Amino acid sequence: MNPTTTTSPYAPLQNDTFLRACLRQATDYTPIWMMRQAGRFLPEYCATRAKAGSFMGLATNTDYATEVTLQPVDRFPIDAAILFSDILTVPDAMGLGLSFAQGEGPRFATPVRDEAAVAKLEVPDMDKLRYVFDAVTSIRKALNGRVPLIGFSGSAWTLACYMVEGAGSDDYRLVKSMMYSRPDLMHRILQINADTIAQYLNAQIEAGAQAVMIFDSWGGVLADGAFQEFSLAYTRRVLSQLHKEYNGARIPSIVFTKGGGLWLDEMEKLDCNALGLDWTVNLTKARALVGGSKALQGNLDPNVLFAKPEQIEAEAIKVLNAFGTPHSGSGTGPTHIFNLGHGISQYTPPEHVGTLVEAVHNHSRKMRSAC
Amino acid sequence: MNPTTTTSPYAPLQNDTFLRACLRQATDYTPIWMMRQAGRFLPEYCATRAKAGSFMGLATNTDYATEVTLQPVDRFPIDAAILFSDILTVPDAMGLGLSFAQGEGPRFATPVRDEAAVAKLEVPDMDKLRYVFDAVTSIRKALNGRVPLIGFSGSAWTLACYMVEGAGSDDYRLVKSMMYSRPDLMHRILQINADTIAQYLNAQIEAGAQAVMIFDSWGGVLADGAFQEFSLAYTRRVLSQLHKEYNGARIPSIVFTKGGGLWLDEMEKLDCNALGLDWTVNLTKARALVGGSKALQGNLDPNVLFAKPEQIEAEAIKVLNAFGTPHSGSGTGPTHIFNLGHGISQYTPPEHVGTLVEAVHNHSRKMRSAC
Repeated sequence: MNPTTTTSPYAPLQNDTFLRACLRQATDYTPIWMMRQAGRFLPEYCATRAKAGSFMGLATNTDYATEVTLQPVDRFPIDAAILFSDILTVPDAMGLGLSFAQGEGPRFATPVRDEAAVAKLEVPDMDKLRYVFDAVTSIRKALNGRVPLIGFSGSAWTLACYMVEGAGSDDYRLVKSMMYSRPDLMHRILQINADTIAQYLNAQIEAGAQAVMIFDSWGGVLADGAFQEFSLAYTRRVLSQLHKEYNGARIPSIVFTKGGGLWLDEMEKLDCNALGLDWTVNLTKARALVGGSKALQGNLDPNVLFAKPEQIEAEAIKVLNAFGTPHSGSGTGPTHIFNLGHGISQYTPPEHVGTLVEAVHNHSRKMRSAC
Repeated sequence: MNPTTTTSPYAPLQNDTFLRACLRQATDYTPIWMMRQAGRFLPEYCATRAKAGSFMGLATNTDYATEVTLQPVDRFPIDAAILFSDILTVPDAMGLGLSFAQGEGPRFATPVRDEAAVAKLEVPDMDKLRYVFDAVTSIRKALNGRVPLIGFSGSAWTLACYMVEGAGSDDYRLVKSMMYSRPDLMHRILQINADTIAQYLNAQIEAGAQAVMIFDSWGGVLADGAFQEFSLAYTRRVLSQLHKEYNGARIPSIVFTKGGGLWLDEMEKLDCNALGLDWTVNLTKARALVGGSKALQGNLDPNVLFAKPEQIEAEAIKVLNAFGTPHSGSGTGPTHIFNLGHGISQYTPPEHVGTLVEAVHNHSRKMRSAC
């Protein structure tokens, strides 16, 4: 398939490197984007954020969300844009009352902690998330085909963590207590979450998202056994309901379980195109294990970006070399999408990102020409 | 070797199950102890802590440290005691000025953040840690041979995290920035830490510790490659200097890297007796990988202890069965030491720990008789 020849109403895609790499097709160089690339490390983001007044003011305003999504694309020659939003929009639409207290992170007014609260949960009307889909369409238009747009959601388990804890957590005591003592309640939350996420991602695809990513940010806190039952099974449930194609274009899906490196062999069986990896994973081993069927995305430690330019280059090259030369020629084969192993830090000097993007593009071209 | 026939000045050991399992020798049942077992989940601990006035008041007072170390041994039929102390005693002895602010966790007055601070670092006089060694001797006497006493230290990398960050951290930005931008400074810190830790553990052994454990609590935050260079190499340096035998008794050593499951094959080459595992690791796979040379310690999720007794039993049995029947008969073979995958939560109901210990002892006896 050629992602640029579709029946889409949008401008033709000028850079399909990211989508091709997701689909394990050859590319001239290794595409790169960064988790949380539209974020606080960019002064222009902070300026828009100040205008919007609050994080949710930013996320719910189509113009602002479009503006900040495009900022990193305007500044760096990155190969994909990702919708500016938050994974907690979904439980918010379920009526849990999301707020962001100053300097405190997200908090839910009515966390889901008992049988009565679980009984009340249901898949929300997608109209409550209309602002997200409007942002997707607006961003897709504004991108004008420069790079593809990635939509996203938290995983069923990761959303459940926030829904039960009511906020971030160090030890996941409340959500794990429910999981171990009332697995029936936990399964019900996860089912509802999974079906909601599937509708949410499909609506993003219908609104213009050209790929989707599931952030299983807290899957890695689960015990072996519990991960398979309470996270992986519900990611599978989401994937089984997703559009694989839309308007004639294939829609690649990426699953990223932070701290999930030990379960790669089981994640290979997921019906998705790419797996995200954090920096603890050895890319050589990961490619040998799952590169035969999945594209791999990752996995530079974001803290590398605090080093000097020549050190950033050296670490980027280490990651590229650990994966090795990707598939070339026709058909499909092992491919790599360069990314960080976690969101970029707000303290990152923006010019260091420029160094990284250039290093990835240059070295990955050289690797291919050396073959 | 029979750990009870030594030239030790202490009372003969009545329960050598833990030491035998560390040395991959057969035992009648699977021994169990819990990380942070002398801690806030016990009301008697909180009472002693209140008398002592502060955490360091507790740790530096021989009588109090002895009292709290023995509390879990008095309450539960566990198979080992572990010195009550803190991993930060070592950087405190280096002059970094440790304090525990109310409800805030540890903090260092003078963190090590630049070349000048690194240049000033040196292996401290072990006399500054005399209170730890005095506590070890006092505890060993008070135990009167009931169960063996474990001494411990943080790993070189884990101590460096606290020394550079100056406190706990979410992202390890400062310590990793130094690691990536000034690896020379980081290596110097780690060398000094490793040599200090070796002296510290040897002094604990000389004072009466019958086994030692290295807590590499933050090794798992490192990228693949960086872990080997900045954590594992210095754990190796510590181990190479440790007493393997003292007063005619073998002194087993345990290394626990939280989040280190992906590096088990490399950790197998360490000159230690046992490897600690967190709950993300599949014990069946870990045994197949490294059980041929290392005892395995772990790996129940501490949050299981918030479930109902029958669920705690079921989860304990899952862990025991995942490891499988340990070695029996003479010689050495795969053995298991039951533990949590992390410190016990302060919110744990103490009676649930009783349920766990009983379940582990009972089921592991049954597993052996079924052979």
